Amino acid sequence: MQEKTNGTPNRIVLDAMGGDFGPAETVKGAVQAINLHNVEIALVGDQKEVELELSKYDIRGSRISVVASEGKIGDHEHPITALRQKRDSSILVATKILKSGQADALVSVGSTGASMASAVMVLGLMEGLDRPCLGGPFLGLCPRTVLVDMGSNVDCRPSLLVSFGALGSAFSKYFLGIPEPRVGLLSVGSEEAKGNRSVQESFQLFQESHLNFVGNVEGMDFFTDRADVIVCDGFVGNILLKFTEGLGSAIGPYMYKQLGQYLPENDVAKIIEDLWQTTNLPRTMGGPLFGVNGAVILGHGSSTAEGICGAVGTAVQYVELGLMENMRAELERLHNPTELKV
Amino acid sequence: MQEKTNGTPNRIVLDAMGGDFGPAETVKGAVQAINLHNVEIALVGDQKEVELELSKYDIRGSRISVVASEGKIGDHEHPITALRQKRDSSILVATKILKSGQADALVSVGSTGASMASAVMVLGLMEGLDRPCLGGPFLGLCPRTVLVDMGSNVDCRPSLLVSFGALGSAFSKYFLGIPEPRVGLLSVGSEEAKGNRSVQESFQLFQESHLNFVGNVEGMDFFTDRADVIVCDGFVGNILLKFTEGLGSAIGPYMYKQLGQYLPENDVAKIIEDLWQTTNLPRTMGGPLFGVNGAVILGHGSSTAEGICGAVGTAVQYVELGLMENMRAELERLHNPTELKV
Repeated sequence: MQEKTNGTPNRIVLDAMGGDFGPAETVKGAVQAINLHNVEIALVGDQKEVELELSKYDIRGSRISVVASEGKIGDHEHPITALRQKRDSSILVATKILKSGQADALVSVGSTGASMASAVMVLGLMEGLDRPCLGGPFLGLCPRTVLVDMGSNVDCRPSLLVSFGALGSAFSKYFLGIPEPRVGLLSVGSEEAKGNRSVQESFQLFQESHLNFVGNVEGMDFFTDRADVIVCDGFVGNILLKFTEGLGSAIGPYMYKQLGQYLPENDVAKIIEDLWQTTNLPRTMGGPLFGVNGAVILGHGSSTAEGICGAVGTAVQYVELGLMENMRAELERLHNPTELKV
Repeated sequence: MQEKTNGTPNRIVLDAMGGDFGPAETVKGAVQAINLHNVEIALVGDQKEVELELSKYDIRGSRISVVASEGKIGDHEHPITALRQKRDSSILVATKILKSGQADALVSVGSTGASMASAVMVLGLMEGLDRPCLGGPFLGLCPRTVLVDMGSNVDCRPSLLVSFGALGSAFSKYFLGIPEPRVGLLSVGSEEAKGNRSVQESFQLFQESHLNFVGNVEGMDFFTDRADVIVCDGFVGNILLKFTEGLGSAIGPYMYKQLGQYLPENDVAKIIEDLWQTTNLPRTMGGPLFGVNGAVILGHGSSTAEGICGAVGTAVQYVELGLMENMRAELERLHNPTELKV
């Protein structure tokens, strides 16, 4: 997709305090993004800290501003409780700016739980949905295969899984440009009878939906091009995601040893860096939160400036493709099939 | 572990008809194993077919014999129904030979469902267990980390998960030589409250058991050395296993392209072959079926001769280490904790 390079810039609000390396890396990433994308960025965070970071860069004439907030919500806090107590925290202030219409999209690499809870609380969920989810491509080896849910909903009713399928399908169609995304249900065998209770109960619902359902798929099918969207609950999705990240980190030292005997260190480092990237897509581009009434892009807590900049790019695409409206329409088609067939 | 190189050979019974490439590869693997290990092997299968394969090798003086059976059970048959109908099928005949005491261990790369059902039916389950499971190391990058269950039990009660933990712990202790195996419960966060219903309900039981329970572990912890035994239900285990296999296959072409610019084809092929091996441990050594009253080693359906030979090696170790007795003792300790503390 081409970004519009002239015309009104997209207005991004960024939780500058979020993540393991905020505000240093978030601010650095924002500066990179300003130069790369046609955006203006509002940095939400502790004013002094953020301005100190900003002072390290020459941003004269850049469309970058600071919005003061107080405190942040950490990974180990209970999201709902923390949101109630810290009413001026960076994520809450940032989400409210999105809600008010002063921004087109929100980017956060802070606590996933807090970012999601804040989005649900402030922006609300799309009709017919009782929980949001995370989805998107997660592996460079299969960059057009969407995994949904990546880890927010551990026990899912069948109807929720089908909704996730519809959201993933809209993402695949509009973000990745796949006309009739094939939707598969992740299981332990391709036959209808295979799977745990949740999968067995969901199969029928998927089959009755308007989705291009291709049946159960298996773990290897991320690589076999049997489906464009692979649906599982967030328990399995989160385990797969973290397993892949761990594998990507472990394979580095292994390949280093293997390749070290053949190649100079520079080449080895380059090959391993590329390999790592293929196992860490979400760390380089973030992923949209599906199902909330607003463009919210979440990134990995360990994101560096490159990850922030990539997530801003994802936010721009999300907005320009009208992904939110398309997802809403896909859900509506799922929940009111007859109305739309007329 | 050293195999005894003299003394009585271990008697292995092999389902020669099993797998995608039986009997050609199973017989070839048996011949390799005879030369490598101190074993005698009974090949169970269609007499003519097996003898035809055997005639391709010089096996004079070898301790290899053929036991006639009729028919085999395929992957797509319902195990229980098929076992009832095909009473002389290779897997059933082979399991009965183990039961009769004419063999010390059984190796099968045929239908996992049929091999397991046959084992449960003929050999029976260890006391206090209502289902068997598959476990073992599954990744060359973490060859001492045991995953259990690898895919036979999709919906597990908490008490079953704890039993799997005990069996995995015994395997880790006696097969891998880890004195006090750390047992982790696979989840989406390390805190006790994190996880789906099944994990949350199991946590307490694990904590109360005699196992060296280290709490919840996450997907990346296969690579962080936080646990020696990682317990999950067979739904998650099977997906992880197949995902890893698929990844191993997909990474080959990727690395081929990456390395092709730097290295001659021979070197590239060698590196990729090694990498593939690290993602396909069960294909090279098979894995014991945990919880049945007999030494049953199952291998991947796509195993070639090397895989068969590796599985025979695993069978020999299983027998010589008295793994079955040790697993039984570990289960007993779990179910009758007070008796054993006296």
